[in-house]
Amino acid sequence: MEEVSLELLKKKMQDFVKERDWEKYHTPRNLLLNMIGEVGELSEIFQWKGEVAKGVPDWDEAEKVHLGEELSDVLLNLVRLSDVCGIDLGKAALRKVQLNALKYPAPTKTDDHTSA
Amino acid sequence: MEEVSLELLKKKMQDFVKERDWEKYHTPRNLLLNMIGEVGELSEIFQWKGEVAKGVPDWDEAEKVHLGEELSDVLLNLVRLSDVCGIDLGKAALRKVQLNALKYPAPTKTDDHTSA
Amino acid sequence: MEEVSLELLKKKMQDFVKERDWEKYHTPRNLLLNMIGEVGELSEIFQWKGEVAKGVPDWDEAEKVHLGEELSDVLLNLVRLSDVCGIDLGKAALRKVQLNALKYPAPTKTDDHTSA
Amino acid sequence: MEEVSLELLKKKMQDFVKERDWEKYHTPRNLLLNMIGEVGELSEIFQWKGEVAKGVPDWDEAEKVHLGEELSDVLLNLVRLSDVCGIDLGKAALRKVQLNALKYPAPTKTDDHTSA
Repeated sequence: MEEVSLELLKKKMQDFVKERDWEKYHTPRNLLLNMIGEVGELSEIFQWKGEVAKGVPDWDEAEKVHLGEELSDVLLNLVRLSDVCGIDLGKAALRKVQLNALKYPAPTKTDDHTSA
Repeated sequence: MEEVSLELLKKKMQDFVKERDWEKYHTPRNLLLNMIGEVGELSEIFQWKGEVAKGVPDWDEAEKVHLGEELSDVLLNLVRLSDVCGIDLGKAALRKVQLNALKYPAPTKTDDHTSA
Repeated sequence: MEEVSLELLKKKMQDFVKERDWEKYHTPRNLLLNMIGEVGELSEIFQWKGEVAKGVPDWDEAEKVHLGEELSDVLLNLVRLSDVCGIDLGKAALRKVQLNALKYPAPTKTDDHTSA
Repeated sequence: MEEVSLELLKKKMQDFVKERDWEKYHTPRNLLLNMIGEVGELSEIFQWKGEVAKGVPDWDEAEKVHLGEELSDVLLNLVRLSDVCGIDLGKAALRKVQLNALKYPAPTKTDDHTSA
């Protein structure tokens, strides 16, 4: 699988915005509301489906492509919002994984077979 | 700046979930609602602030760290949701950038100085 | 069942805000982001439950009370946001029900037994 | 101003759904995701506007009508979600106003002029 870095997406978004002279619109709260709009579109894909199985096996190819587009819209907006806020999202995400591991400690493997 | 790939985050989330035996909870709609909860927490950071300047220059260090955590929570959930849906998020995001460029064509540079 | 009007809730919110001198914080986008935070809290109640049956029959009393509180928080914020935007929410809602009926026409009852 | 009760809106939604035989789609989580889609559409109205003044004085009439429609969509979905969950939304909202008053006590009026 291709390695796509947050840094690459950040640069692509920067170029995209600069080429269109959209920087003036890209304030933190504008981008946040824009991202929430995209989250709404993602929710619409799932809204009338009842429980959906992992891997979305019953969805046709067009729906899966659409799903990938809406997930991407949320991601690209999130990357852009982070950039405009001056947050290094990749670094923050790696740190958050570590914080989550401290907050929710994994059971040690020996827990499963200490009794004899 | 460190290069953090979506693939790396996906693997970290897979390991995290597996170590805690949480796979049974990670259905697409459960993860989607969880992500919306995180979007709500991100919105709370911005809710009473009025317009926020780029780079959030007036925020203290603790607020910036908190902001990075909430942005990360949305990202990690989005990466996990994509994985559970069988979507290659990096590939989808690169494709979406291209689609966006077709949807919103950039003005050509010569547009700016054709008059004489 | 008690009749609770949107007008009554609007007045209660106006009084609440005035008594605390919070009017200065209640701009449209502040209130919108606040409402999204409440939507996130509502989503958290449902996030790990898988499909939930109508009437939430398996939930204990404390969860139902909590659900009522989160639904109310969204409602109260929505009423306040509408007020601050100068929108008569009750009037707009009645009009929207009519628009929806035009957009999604109901099958006429005779459709079910026109054949003889 | 017209008094529009939550009870009236609940009944209108019940009739609307019954006439279209849509009850089978109206599970709690389906309705929640549908409401989040509507919150996304509401956010889109505000997304590129920067700070918006109270009363949205700079918006044209068509935008105000659109705003009323999106606010209404969120409300109608919220009323329907509450009904399907078996929650009396009006009663819950009045109770929540009281809880909020306990959580955030108002300064007493005498606080302002007790010193002499």
